[in-house]
Amino acid sequence: MRALVKHHSGPGLKFDADRPKPIPGARDVLIRVTKVGICGTDRHIWEWDEWAAGRIPVGIVTGHEFVGVIEAVGSAVTNYAPGVRVSAEGHVTAGKDFNSRTGNAHIASDTRIIGIDRDGCFAEYVVVPEENVWPVHPSIPDRVAAVLDPLGNAVHTVMAAGVSAKSVLVTGTGIIGLMSITVAKAAGASRIFATDLDPRRRALAKKLGATEVFDPRESAWIDEVRRACRGEGVDVLLEMSGASAAMEQGFGALRNGGVAALLGLFGRPLTFDFNRHVIFKGCTVLGINGRKMFETWYQMEELLLSGRLELEEIVTHEFPLEEFERAHETMISGEGIKVVMAVG
Amino acid sequence: MRALVKHHSGPGLKFDADRPKPIPGARDVLIRVTKVGICGTDRHIWEWDEWAAGRIPVGIVTGHEFVGVIEAVGSAVTNYAPGVRVSAEGHVTAGKDFNSRTGNAHIASDTRIIGIDRDGCFAEYVVVPEENVWPVHPSIPDRVAAVLDPLGNAVHTVMAAGVSAKSVLVTGTGIIGLMSITVAKAAGASRIFATDLDPRRRALAKKLGATEVFDPRESAWIDEVRRACRGEGVDVLLEMSGASAAMEQGFGALRNGGVAALLGLFGRPLTFDFNRHVIFKGCTVLGINGRKMFETWYQMEELLLSGRLELEEIVTHEFPLEEFERAHETMISGEGIKVVMAVG
Amino acid sequence: MRALVKHHSGPGLKFDADRPKPIPGARDVLIRVTKVGICGTDRHIWEWDEWAAGRIPVGIVTGHEFVGVIEAVGSAVTNYAPGVRVSAEGHVTAGKDFNSRTGNAHIASDTRIIGIDRDGCFAEYVVVPEENVWPVHPSIPDRVAAVLDPLGNAVHTVMAAGVSAKSVLVTGTGIIGLMSITVAKAAGASRIFATDLDPRRRALAKKLGATEVFDPRESAWIDEVRRACRGEGVDVLLEMSGASAAMEQGFGALRNGGVAALLGLFGRPLTFDFNRHVIFKGCTVLGINGRKMFETWYQMEELLLSGRLELEEIVTHEFPLEEFERAHETMISGEGIKVVMAVG
Amino acid sequence: MRALVKHHSGPGLKFDADRPKPIPGARDVLIRVTKVGICGTDRHIWEWDEWAAGRIPVGIVTGHEFVGVIEAVGSAVTNYAPGVRVSAEGHVTAGKDFNSRTGNAHIASDTRIIGIDRDGCFAEYVVVPEENVWPVHPSIPDRVAAVLDPLGNAVHTVMAAGVSAKSVLVTGTGIIGLMSITVAKAAGASRIFATDLDPRRRALAKKLGATEVFDPRESAWIDEVRRACRGEGVDVLLEMSGASAAMEQGFGALRNGGVAALLGLFGRPLTFDFNRHVIFKGCTVLGINGRKMFETWYQMEELLLSGRLELEEIVTHEFPLEEFERAHETMISGEGIKVVMAVG
Repeated sequence: MRALVKHHSGPGLKFDADRPKPIPGARDVLIRVTKVGICGTDRHIWEWDEWAAGRIPVGIVTGHEFVGVIEAVGSAVTNYAPGVRVSAEGHVTAGKDFNSRTGNAHIASDTRIIGIDRDGCFAEYVVVPEENVWPVHPSIPDRVAAVLDPLGNAVHTVMAAGVSAKSVLVTGTGIIGLMSITVAKAAGASRIFATDLDPRRRALAKKLGATEVFDPRESAWIDEVRRACRGEGVDVLLEMSGASAAMEQGFGALRNGGVAALLGLFGRPLTFDFNRHVIFKGCTVLGINGRKMFETWYQMEELLLSGRLELEEIVTHEFPLEEFERAHETMISGEGIKVVMAVG
Repeated sequence: MRALVKHHSGPGLKFDADRPKPIPGARDVLIRVTKVGICGTDRHIWEWDEWAAGRIPVGIVTGHEFVGVIEAVGSAVTNYAPGVRVSAEGHVTAGKDFNSRTGNAHIASDTRIIGIDRDGCFAEYVVVPEENVWPVHPSIPDRVAAVLDPLGNAVHTVMAAGVSAKSVLVTGTGIIGLMSITVAKAAGASRIFATDLDPRRRALAKKLGATEVFDPRESAWIDEVRRACRGEGVDVLLEMSGASAAMEQGFGALRNGGVAALLGLFGRPLTFDFNRHVIFKGCTVLGINGRKMFETWYQMEELLLSGRLELEEIVTHEFPLEEFERAHETMISGEGIKVVMAVG
Repeated sequence: MRALVKHHSGPGLKFDADRPKPIPGARDVLIRVTKVGICGTDRHIWEWDEWAAGRIPVGIVTGHEFVGVIEAVGSAVTNYAPGVRVSAEGHVTAGKDFNSRTGNAHIASDTRIIGIDRDGCFAEYVVVPEENVWPVHPSIPDRVAAVLDPLGNAVHTVMAAGVSAKSVLVTGTGIIGLMSITVAKAAGASRIFATDLDPRRRALAKKLGATEVFDPRESAWIDEVRRACRGEGVDVLLEMSGASAAMEQGFGALRNGGVAALLGLFGRPLTFDFNRHVIFKGCTVLGINGRKMFETWYQMEELLLSGRLELEEIVTHEFPLEEFERAHETMISGEGIKVVMAVG
Repeated sequence: MRALVKHHSGPGLKFDADRPKPIPGARDVLIRVTKVGICGTDRHIWEWDEWAAGRIPVGIVTGHEFVGVIEAVGSAVTNYAPGVRVSAEGHVTAGKDFNSRTGNAHIASDTRIIGIDRDGCFAEYVVVPEENVWPVHPSIPDRVAAVLDPLGNAVHTVMAAGVSAKSVLVTGTGIIGLMSITVAKAAGASRIFATDLDPRRRALAKKLGATEVFDPRESAWIDEVRRACRGEGVDVLLEMSGASAAMEQGFGALRNGGVAALLGLFGRPLTFDFNRHVIFKGCTVLGINGRKMFETWYQMEELLLSGRLELEEIVTHEFPLEEFERAHETMISGEGIKVVMAVG
């Protein structure tokens, strides 16, 4: 089969026209891939930074965002049959620790991720355990179904924080930050403020539903947000930037008793004033990663069925798999936001 | 002052052009009333049914939905001054029982309600304790500010159930049922199904944001709703009708593990199958009345600031106070939905 | 193998010394049974009442409470190996509906129960799917491990209601009602009131930690409970009796804003005043069945590890499997509370 | 009246035998003080450290933990009368911001604290607003009623985290850390681990109900705790030390998806790895201060009524007010844990 392989300990991927088709185990499902999305994580793998060099096994097929159709099922699979259009949760666990058995497999202690720890979906075929399969609602187009994984990050963050009838601040409007804005609006946020250094991103944030957008370097914005929120601050902070300054500012704009959900990863440990930002204010801080398995996926389906998510501005480009270099470059340059590759 | 008085033990109200202006106590606020809303409860008082005859003291000024401007404050009032535009929570409590002291004064054991147990707002002036005052945001017009009390019932029900990214069924689209639809949509409900016997109400429900509306006498609707919701049923039931059949049907359409919020009052005790509807299904049932003091009011303000509440179709008529008979008749006949009277 | 079989459409069970040993499927585990518990449901099956006649397939092995040791595993089993001491959740689901995939498999739409819908554990061997296996902590003796299923009902009810630092009323002190008392105390209930018609049960309830016990026919008890609870009523009602009168009284003793968890099944639909008991009071009603899979099991393990559960007074008798008639009679007569049979 | 006054900008307090008796405002209550507790905050005031010099107005009466009897009430007070035995919440707010009006006055934006920002209770009489009064249950002795303020800190922390049927780690067993242990046990924690540098404190922690205690400098303890908790870590961390190392270790011992409640104040901003401790683990972090007004007080009353709080080992010394120097020294030296002074 055709596949993109992390062929060496360095930048780039290699197109392999003749990778052996994977064979599903007894409890696995073999999926013929239709479309895939390129994640920020794929950029790290492409650029082969320190994190990638320490984590990614050379030789694997990368990619973890996809939609496809079931081609075959293992002998012990009971819930699926060939022909079903599906996506999948890329976090694979044995299902035996506390979190796996209580609806929180996304933070299981033994998680392995497709396209990172084992072969992924930048290929004609991918194998995942039956438990990870997600049947895609017929009303959801492939272009969207290919990016349910990052959309699920946004949905997880928004739903964990709880935004219904609340004012929200999103710090950082990268892909997931932008998705969070349309998700938060659809999920009932009353007002959404957003910050980003990049004016194009800010403009897009506004288009997707942000009430006001700010350049975080213009320091008066915190007062402005607080003033708009009874002089007290926003109810909810969604930290999407992984920037130390955004963290500091975001908590400065959060009201006493507010909720902060953190998704952005920080380059290094922060110097953070817990007294001022968390203890005296009586705030709640939530660490978010992955997607709840599978509560987040059901919430995402409902939000998509609502017709209120605006994803067209976010999924900006599509290339055939063979043009993977252009696809990655479009994403890395910032010209594209979410870039999709057509495989099938 | 001018006032509408429940002058005798029988139907109707009497216009009194010379009612003495009330005098605020040390902790009270005197409010000059601008506009008032006529509640379903006011209909019971007007018609003098069994409930009204047993509860309402003859001689009081009725009415509990209003907006106005503070005219004077008692000697021990600290947070308000004359000139502030306000509405007020009509549930008055001493503030000393468990619920009053834990943010749930709406279910205090000693509640007395303005316009029901003591003089209300169908008058030029009304007196309420300082604790009950709600300053109205400048962006909210008087016509809406006059009906924050019933809108708050809808907000309380919707927010207690939790509708963000969830499918919702509203059984009964009276005034508060209709308000619940626009509130649920603004608060992030993904899909909203509604039932009502009256085709005009159903049409209006659809206009306000219902995904599908049903005549509950056509029994196939429950299967249709369940089918639309993964074959399992809706996530949330908002029971707004007080009808025994709606209760039965509503739980029939609710998925296992769903949440039912009950606001509609039933004419008599129900025969209800707890095994089937609640225990085997693992459902949660919430009793709702009044508005949380004051969490609901803050949520309502946020929802109004979101610009997503559609109330123009709901507040259909406005009359001067002197035309109270026409106003009440317009509401009672069903010609109007929410009827407002201008006082000031 | 030796087994107790529901051999005909009528009362009793038959001892079969030569039942074929079950063969595990690819994803199943074969367990050699050590000890089993007799459930109230087993009484219905024994007595062959209307419910049993309509539900139980003649010919099956009954029983669903047990502890044993894994003897063999199917070819696709990954998390268990022979020799592990285990109990199991008896609710078997395909794992594909909303509740199964969100930590609530106990209310899945396709549940089949061992010993009720398929062969159970009153036998030398039982087969369950890998997902249903629960490894038993070494500190828990077999006598207790045999009854984790009903103990789990009590834990589920208590933990769903939330009793920490709260006053609790338990209406009905059958097996699960009694278990609820020791569980509620261990889980942090501040005060526990209990009602039962039977004075021996009341005495035992007191021994297990009830603050006060009442004969529900002596009507002054409701006032007494309310008086003890600030004149307002208990924070939490655990309805364990399935009796209409207990339901009425229990809600009468519950404070405004209280939580009622219903586990007892009612013989028929109730006539119930939702206005008075639920809506005006702002109460929350929770339907409870089974055990959360597997949050309840983890909570149960923690409670057992706390050393605060008193189960010796509850597990009163033990017989060898061959004396199943005496075992069932001891339970049915009320002489025993929880009766265990030794199999291995 | 007799009072302890912060008489100058430096260490110590001065006994004033002739301080004018305070006069209650219209909404205030005048309380004749019976017993008071010396808080860690009072130590800062006594030692006149940087915080105290920047916050405390010279000339005020200090102290904020007390019990007494109402002597007189202001003209607009409605809920209390002379003769009632009371304590009081020391956080005074105008009651008009979001948190004050939603049951979270403990994090109001305009809080002023008795004994810190205005005259306190180290005196024969103290004045507080009616809203702050807490009637003390007759079963609670004065010695305990004098320290409801710090006990409430412990109750707030424990109840916010939620410990019922959960394993808990308490880092730091100062006064509130020790109180947290007996509170957590009474509130249903299954197992309680505790760390402290001081072996006497560790011994006392064990006496109060800790399952295991550790010297945090012996680094193997984290593995030991994790091993005891399924190899995953504790469910709940209560951070009571304000020490950077304890924070790091505590999160290291916390399981994925665990809850950390932070009460201890840190001497300076921390360097903290949010990726590792919060985001990847999916943890929840709660900032805690004060006591919920008044949910915490009700929970505290229930816990005291349960008879399960062990406070005798914690309230170690009592002196007459006149011996305030010895009282403060006993507390500061660590010889006493909680030191009470008798006033009346």
